[in-house]
Parts: sequence; C-alpha cells; structure tokens
Amino acid sequence: MTDWMERAVALDANDGMAWTRDRFELPEGVIYLDGNSLGARPRGVAERVAQVLDAEWRDGLIRSWNDAGWFDLPLRVGDRIAPLIGVGAGEVAVGDSTSVNLFKCLAAALHARPDRSVILCEAGNFPTDGYMAQGLTRLVEKAELRWFDDAEDVRAKLGPDVAVVLLSHVHYRSAAVQDMAAVNAAAHAAGALVLWDLSHSTGAVPVDLGGTGADMAVGCTYKYLNGGPGAPAFAWVAPGLAPVSQPLAGWMGHAAPFAFDRDYAPADGARGLMAGTPQVLSLSALDAALEIWEEVDRPALWARSEAMVAFFIDAVLDLCAGHGLALVSPRAAPRGSHVGFDHPEGYAIVQALIARGIIGDFRAPQMMRFGFAPLYLRFADLTAAALALRDVLETRAWDDPRFQARGAVT
Amino acid sequence: MTDWMERAVALDANDGMAWTRDRFELPEGVIYLDGNSLGARPRGVAERVAQVLDAEWRDGLIRSWNDAGWFDLPLRVGDRIAPLIGVGAGEVAVGDSTSVNLFKCLAAALHARPDRSVILCEAGNFPTDGYMAQGLTRLVEKAELRWFDDAEDVRAKLGPDVAVVLLSHVHYRSAAVQDMAAVNAAAHAAGALVLWDLSHSTGAVPVDLGGTGADMAVGCTYKYLNGGPGAPAFAWVAPGLAPVSQPLAGWMGHAAPFAFDRDYAPADGARGLMAGTPQVLSLSALDAALEIWEEVDRPALWARSEAMVAFFIDAVLDLCAGHGLALVSPRAAPRGSHVGFDHPEGYAIVQALIARGIIGDFRAPQMMRFGFAPLYLRFADLTAAALALRDVLETRAWDDPRFQARGAVT
Repeated sequence: MTDWMERAVALDANDGMAWTRDRFELPEGVIYLDGNSLGARPRGVAERVAQVLDAEWRDGLIRSWNDAGWFDLPLRVGDRIAPLIGVGAGEVAVGDSTSVNLFKCLAAALHARPDRSVILCEAGNFPTDGYMAQGLTRLVEKAELRWFDDAEDVRAKLGPDVAVVLLSHVHYRSAAVQDMAAVNAAAHAAGALVLWDLSHSTGAVPVDLGGTGADMAVGCTYKYLNGGPGAPAFAWVAPGLAPVSQPLAGWMGHAAPFAFDRDYAPADGARGLMAGTPQVLSLSALDAALEIWEEVDRPALWARSEAMVAFFIDAVLDLCAGHGLALVSPRAAPRGSHVGFDHPEGYAIVQALIARGIIGDFRAPQMMRFGFAPLYLRFADLTAAALALRDVLETRAWDDPRFQARGAVT
Repeated sequence: MTDWMERAVALDANDGMAWTRDRFELPEGVIYLDGNSLGARPRGVAERVAQVLDAEWRDGLIRSWNDAGWFDLPLRVGDRIAPLIGVGAGEVAVGDSTSVNLFKCLAAALHARPDRSVILCEAGNFPTDGYMAQGLTRLVEKAELRWFDDAEDVRAKLGPDVAVVLLSHVHYRSAAVQDMAAVNAAAHAAGALVLWDLSHSTGAVPVDLGGTGADMAVGCTYKYLNGGPGAPAFAWVAPGLAPVSQPLAGWMGHAAPFAFDRDYAPADGARGLMAGTPQVLSLSALDAALEIWEEVDRPALWARSEAMVAFFIDAVLDLCAGHGLALVSPRAAPRGSHVGFDHPEGYAIVQALIARGIIGDFRAPQMMRFGFAPLYLRFADLTAAALALRDVLETRAWDDPRFQARGAVT
C-alpha cells in the first residue's frame, strides 16, 4: 500500500508555490476542502475593509466616490480578473450576483440574435442558471427554453432557432470540463452565441475566453477568487458584440450617469453591463483578495490544482476501497479543482468529517464534494482528509444521530 | 434680522434627541449636508464588520451560512426596516440594488395585471427608475412606458390599460412629497397598482405603506438608513399580491434552494423577491447601522426633520436674500428632508462650500442640494452652513477656477 502521507510530504517539500498559503489566514485545526464554495480569507482584506470603513466612508463621506475611486472600482476589479479568463482590460464589469449577471447576458444574447428564440441550457447546470433563463422566458414572449444533457446533445440540438447556449465550463457537481473552443465553434457554426458560467473555473483552471472565440461569460468571485461571502460577480461580453443591449439598464451603466437624462443610453464597454450602485464594502474586499494574482505563476498553479485532484482521487480510491464510494468526477484530467463521491450516507459522512475538522460539503441526493483551492492547500492536508474519510467509513461514524440531523442549509 | 445662531443654539439645547448624534462617527471640521446621498457611519458598524470578517468568514468559513445566520440575514435586515415603512415582519427582502429591485417589482406588477400593458412613470423621477422601466419594456413585447408630470397628470393618464404607476414618494430634487394614500386610491380605482420608490423617504419622513393600502415599494439604504456606500436596497410587495412572480428568480429566492431542483419554484413571502447570493459584508454593515431604530422615537424624529428643513429654508432666504437663489423645494411642509436651491453658479458654489467643510451636492443643471439627516445634524450646523453660503455668495467665491473645474462624478 502506498504511504500517502510520505508521498504528500515529499510533494509539499518540493512545491515552489508554498508561499501562497502564507497569504491566507486559516483557522487552526481545520482542513478546508470547501474553498470551491467559499474561499478562505486572504491576508490584507481586513486591512483594506478597515480603510474603506474609516478613511473612505467615515472621513471621506460622499467625496470618496471621486477621491477614493469608488466610481471606477467595478472596472478596476474587473481588470484584475481579466487575465484569469483570457480577456482584455476594460472588458469585465464586477457587481451584482452571478444570477443577475446571467439574466443580463441571456437577454443581451436574445437581443443580438433577433431572428432566433431558443435558449439552450444544460439540464444539470447549477440550478440558478436555469432559473434565470426560466425567468427571462416568462418575460420575452418569443423566447423558449430547451434543455440539453451533454456536449454531444448540444450539437444535436443546435438548430437554426437557437440564439444562445448556456453552460458551465466546470460542472458544479462532477467537475467535468467542457471543451470551450469546441462548443464555441459548434455554436458559431450554427449561428448561436455561447454564455459560459465560469463560477467553478475562475482561479482554479485555465480559461481562455479570448483565445477560444467566446461570446459572453459570468462568474462567481467568492470561490477560488476568495472575495468573501456573497462577493459580487463578474460579467464579460466580447467587444465584438458591443454595444450591449441588456435590460437591467440602471444609472451606473448609463453613458452619463450624472447628467440625469430621462432616457437610457448605454455606456461603452463593460460599464454598460452595470445596473445600480455597487456594494462598495464587498467590492473592496474582493479587490484586495485579488492582489495575489499579480504574483501567481498561473500555469504552475493550474498544474498544482490538477495534481491535487489526482492525488486525492487516487488516495481515496486506495485507502477507502471496499466502502461503497462511487467517484462522480472524471477519472482523468481535464477536471475542475473539486471532486465528488456518491455514497448513500453522504450527508452524514460529510457532517462526521466536519466534526473532525475536515470541511467539505454535500450536494443532494448523496454526493460528497471536496474542493482543492490550490492557493492554500497542501498535499499533506489531502492525505489527512483521505485518512479521516477512511476512519469515518470504517467506524460507520455516520450512524451518530448528530450527523444524521439536517440543518436549514445543507 | 433674526439671530439665526442664537435661535439654533436654543433649539439644540432643548432637543430631546441630541443623544442620536453620539451614535455616529463624524469627521472633524465637516458639516455634512449630504446624508441624503450617503449617510454618515454609525458607531458599531466597524465592529460588526470586523466580526463578520474574523469570527464569521475567517474562522467559521462556509459553516457561517448556518451558524452565523447569513442565510436569513436578508430577511432579518428587512424586519428592521419594516416598521419604518409601515409593513409587517417577514415582508421585506434586502439585497441587490434599488435599480434591480425596481425591475423585479415592475415585472411582478405586469404579471399581476396580465390584461394591462402600460407602466406609467414620473418623468422627473430619479433617472434609474425610468431606465429600468425602459429596460423592461424592451423585453416585454406588450409593455409600454408612458410618462406623467405630476399627481394631477397621473390621474388624467390612469386609463384601463395602465398596469402600474411608478413614482417616488419624496422627489430626489425638490423633496416634494406625494400623497401616498391619494395616489394609491386613484390607481386602485382605475385597476392599476402603484410601485413606490422610497429612497428619499425611508428614515427621514413617515411612511405607511400598509395603512395607505400600497402595493409595492423599493428603497435605498445608504441614505438616511446609513448602511454604507452602495448598501443593498430593499423590496416589499403587499402580502395580498403573493405569490410574487418576478423574473430575477435566482436560487436564493427558490422555495428549496438546496434541493437543486431544475425548475424554479418561488419561496413564500419576501424571500421570493431574492435573486442570487447576498453580499454579506455590505448587508451586515447595514444590519448594524439599523440597530439605532429600535430606540428612536420615530414621530419625534420626523418632526425634527421637518423643523430642520423649515429652519434652513428660512435662514437661507433671510441671510442670502438678493443673491439670486431660487427655492426649488416646496415652501411649506410636507417635504422630504432635503432642500434644493437653483443658482446659475450652483456647481461652483457647492465646490466652494465643500472647500469650507460644508458638504452638500449638486444636481444638474444648476441645483444645489442640502440634506438634513435628522439623526446627527444640529440646528447650529444649519446656521453655520447658511452663513457660509452667504459668505460664498457675497464674495463671489465661485469665480475661483478650482471650483469651476468639473470632476468625473459631480
């Protein structure tokens, strides 16, 4: 049997990116395998938020819209995200939630394809993606939502009435990765646009919207970008599709917001994707959290992410063999930076692990999900987690009623 | 001539609400007459944000969605706002921006009046209100936007095709107050709904949505509610209109968000007004800022607000007579808690006042706007501001090129 801890220690000792972990403030006694749901707090964020609270809000008051640059902050933060997704400066707007940004982009896609009516949505996508598409089709009389199952099925359904394909680059359950270039090419050949949800990709795997000829993307910033709970999301539309016509046309997206014109006129570029006043505290925390990316060797980090997932899958399949775990994720790369295992007692097993300080999460009906935020995890953490999982399985720790009880949010 | 400072000192000395000022952290050397744009920072907010950053995010990590109650925070904050607008617990959702909430409610109104197609919008309303209506009518084929000028005009235009009237309770320029009960009654008599924008009302003047039979409302929390820059907005729909059908139907508004159902099903009550994941840092700052309202004698505060506006108007008209100021606001109550004066050099006069530590704001084309946040201003501040305004006018301080230069945000 492999000595997984020995192997992990050797990998950690030879890791040229160990410095990134020191940029995070992690609680004692916790192995955190849920950075794909809410990233850990980077150093510097608390200081930046304190600066916004004190120097900018308390002392600067309304003057800080100019003097502290709040007005341009959504675009400055967007410029920090742009290199992570393969697009240019000035192209990304940050604000609102992923859900709201999905709505803007779907509506913009319908507007850009006026002779087409169908939104083609991945049936197994994170639910809010489909919910926002449903909401839009209730408003737009001609619009119709159709579901597809996988990359093969989307090709079959790309008919002349399809305006836009909506799918996740990395699947929130399985971590399966779509071939972005291939999907874009197939959609474009059929005259359709593609809207990518990058929530489980950004900061964990390479993304090249520009290089693959993508049209639109949205994504979450509180996962691998560590922006804090509910941090504002981003939206991107290819410059070739400008000017964007999106219906959440609030004053912050107006070409001249302080002219107080009665009629809406969209600002150029990414600003036209903005709606109302941005939530400056949350946006500033995200801005500080993104500073680390100026120093990160991105290809090395993506490799580390892939190595961690492979290591954990191999360790679990070895250490926990015979205990009824079923791997949901692809056995081989490419994959996102998390992994899912089904087990009939998955919910209670996750609770038992949390009680041991190993924090993963659970996705109904029976999937345990473990995420590997490559900026702050060590291989030794993964071995410790796999050993704890073996212990829970061997001792049937899930039988404890404490672990069977369901909380309000699971 | 009245001795305005003597009078102010006497009013302040007899003020039973002077304690509320001590709950705010105001910078030295500033008289802040822009709390109607961005409220000052209440005591306790920085400590609460630090708690969210440290105990909840850094240490609690993902567990805080349950353990720190983030999941219910949008409704708990809504319950703090409810008594200020005359509605019940569980009826107000807090999240997203005022703009985005306007869109939700307008769409819900069109859905609730399926045989009607017209949104009747106040022409002089804060622009984002009209922009969001324009955005919605671009999506909904049958929908049509029509403008009205004033309360008399709205009655004339309330035809059988009107689904909803959208207007501000307190006007962002003039501070004129609409008669909420009368507008609701007129609209209802014509079969239409009313959506109130309470951005310039909430926390400054009495609002009784429930008592006047209102249908829907949205409002801003970074003005008189002091929630911080870009703090999340609120939305309310009368319980009689439930279940609400609104198109920004994100997973946080789903009846069972963690069931990960493919199809949207709205949560009951205010939760159905939510879209995506709330920005917890900004929302928590607002929650702390609202604590003071548990102790405030609301009728006394509304009286104080009205007295301050009257005092400032009288002082300015007396002290600055002959200098070409034109009062934009109503000469008599009811009014909101700010006042507008037109002057051809309004922009530069506001800059000259800011240089003297008197912070008001400017609204194109030539209006100076001064707001009187009743929780932390003193009558003596108002006299000092009026005297400074007289000095600027008498010395033609606006001629200084520094004050003529226009910034990016004005």
